[in-house]
Amino acid sequence: MDKIQETVSKIGSLDLDRMQKAQAKLDNLTKPHGSLGRLEELAKQIVGITGDINSKLNKKTIIVMASDHGVVDEGVSAYPKDVTAQMVYNFLSGGAGINVLAKHIGAEVKVVDVGVASDLGEHPFLVSKKVDFGTKNMAKGPAMTKKQALKSIQAGIEVVEDVIRDGCDIVGTGDMGIGNTTASSAIASVICQADINLVTGHGTGIDESGLEHKINVIKEAIALNKPDSSDALDVLAKVGGFEIGGIAGVILGASANRIPVVIDGFISGAGALLAASIAPKSKDFMIASHCSVEKGHRIVLEKLGLKPLFDFNMRLGEGTGAALGMDIAEASVKILNEMATFEEAGVSEKK
Amino acid sequence: MDKIQETVSKIGSLDLDRMQKAQAKLDNLTKPHGSLGRLEELAKQIVGITGDINSKLNKKTIIVMASDHGVVDEGVSAYPKDVTAQMVYNFLSGGAGINVLAKHIGAEVKVVDVGVASDLGEHPFLVSKKVDFGTKNMAKGPAMTKKQALKSIQAGIEVVEDVIRDGCDIVGTGDMGIGNTTASSAIASVICQADINLVTGHGTGIDESGLEHKINVIKEAIALNKPDSSDALDVLAKVGGFEIGGIAGVILGASANRIPVVIDGFISGAGALLAASIAPKSKDFMIASHCSVEKGHRIVLEKLGLKPLFDFNMRLGEGTGAALGMDIAEASVKILNEMATFEEAGVSEKK
Repeated sequence: MDKIQETVSKIGSLDLDRMQKAQAKLDNLTKPHGSLGRLEELAKQIVGITGDINSKLNKKTIIVMASDHGVVDEGVSAYPKDVTAQMVYNFLSGGAGINVLAKHIGAEVKVVDVGVASDLGEHPFLVSKKVDFGTKNMAKGPAMTKKQALKSIQAGIEVVEDVIRDGCDIVGTGDMGIGNTTASSAIASVICQADINLVTGHGTGIDESGLEHKINVIKEAIALNKPDSSDALDVLAKVGGFEIGGIAGVILGASANRIPVVIDGFISGAGALLAASIAPKSKDFMIASHCSVEKGHRIVLEKLGLKPLFDFNMRLGEGTGAALGMDIAEASVKILNEMATFEEAGVSEKK
Repeated sequence: MDKIQETVSKIGSLDLDRMQKAQAKLDNLTKPHGSLGRLEELAKQIVGITGDINSKLNKKTIIVMASDHGVVDEGVSAYPKDVTAQMVYNFLSGGAGINVLAKHIGAEVKVVDVGVASDLGEHPFLVSKKVDFGTKNMAKGPAMTKKQALKSIQAGIEVVEDVIRDGCDIVGTGDMGIGNTTASSAIASVICQADINLVTGHGTGIDESGLEHKINVIKEAIALNKPDSSDALDVLAKVGGFEIGGIAGVILGASANRIPVVIDGFISGAGALLAASIAPKSKDFMIASHCSVEKGHRIVLEKLGLKPLFDFNMRLGEGTGAALGMDIAEASVKILNEMATFEEAGVSEKK
């Protein structure tokens, strides 16, 4: 049995018994029942995931998957391709948005090269899982081979399992890859069976004519490659990206190990679509952080049945939304663990 | 000139020049323009408030104003009156929701007795600014005298100024007071000139018939006392509460001292309505944290022109929403201060 199948077969269900115990505990804390709303729901979900009523989310890791996209040759992005590698160096030296937010919430950032189009060299904080030097141009043929698709998912599983072995309690997904909203829109369109116009947005900032062109490129790529919407691997191989496969792998690996996984924005959402298509049960282990500005994210979240925690009009990726979501997740379990009960505090209950 | 007038006269405008500089700095950081959405807006507002482009929000304080309400005699709450004092002790021993969330974000909780109906004794963490032992029953006459209304606002100003003198960089508002959604709904109805039915909710958890009764009590109180909607002091005195006046004072004092003030839920929103009515410029210094479940909060936020950061279906009060909002505010200025620029990181800019 290969690594992916093995991982998928390990994904279980939420621990309903422990969730019920968490609910009883929440109802006994010094607050009106349910008055902490989503914090309570989140705490309960996390208990269901970990199976531990005293879950602590001390060690938090954001895994940023970086890769390049051949489709950038079609002129679909506002930024040059080089920016992917440049931003990886920015992550490694701590200057990017994700570094600032990760530091703010006390999380570690793990940067993974799954397919950057240049040789990044060695760096103590960089994990190399390079599948290839960028994908092929999906407007001319499949973005990658089936074997590469499998390899990218496996890379994600391996990275998250390493991180979990190091004691990580909660994982956040992140991405970097010039051109990756194009791949994500293609994936979303195929898997959600949604009109390409409804799931394609401005990415890092193309103008209206650029958007029209991007939509046409995606249409061409889908018409040419004919991805099979019921086969996530086929979709990933034909119109995906290595980092998107990597994110799917992170989600599958986290789910198999009963670790909550906080999903970032649109690109991570595309990875989550693949993960959910491969293993529907993985949806129970996902926490949606935010709803992105990027058109189509809402459709992706609906398809996944996930309700995002917040909407800050963000569209940076990198795991920036996931970082803020992980902080809220941590707050939620602290409520469960640290608040006093009515009895402990000598507070009268509801009349 | 009395303390309140003096405070109001000190409230200035946002520093537009520094905000422009903040925008220029944000646009030069390694991310597509505007891609951190509300975090960027928030950072800019905070710079406008403090006048400091390098604003740091290291020292964070949540001020929880506690008081009792005579109108509880009408049976408007799901919890007995004693709970106000019991919860104050819970705050002081660190077992309440606000303690957990404040600790999570690294904030201090300052508990203020502005009018709890019992003698709370001395406690190193309790600030005593008791105006009276609870308000009078507004269904039978004014909740307090004009002098008491002034005193409650002044108490808030004094507390926030003490906290600022101790180096506080950002303040959050919080409340505790059995019966205070009744007073807040009355204030919201009068100041927003909204139908009482539209601004009155289930509070800590009354049932439908309880809600109907609560609405009737508010109607009676307003009909009897005839608060003047254009006179915030009159509204506070006739249908308000000491903690709500205290919160208004905190907001006015923070605004006068150019300290950002994060507004919690419905009760804090009623305090913010009073503050904005007394000093419209104070609205610029407010950051709305969340939209509460409590019916009417949305109307209050609209009246104030504030867009809440998140909606977690919370309705606990105490400053719990403010705490999470303060954490996001802190994250926003860290983005401004800590991210690398395109030049520093050697990242190519948009084509």
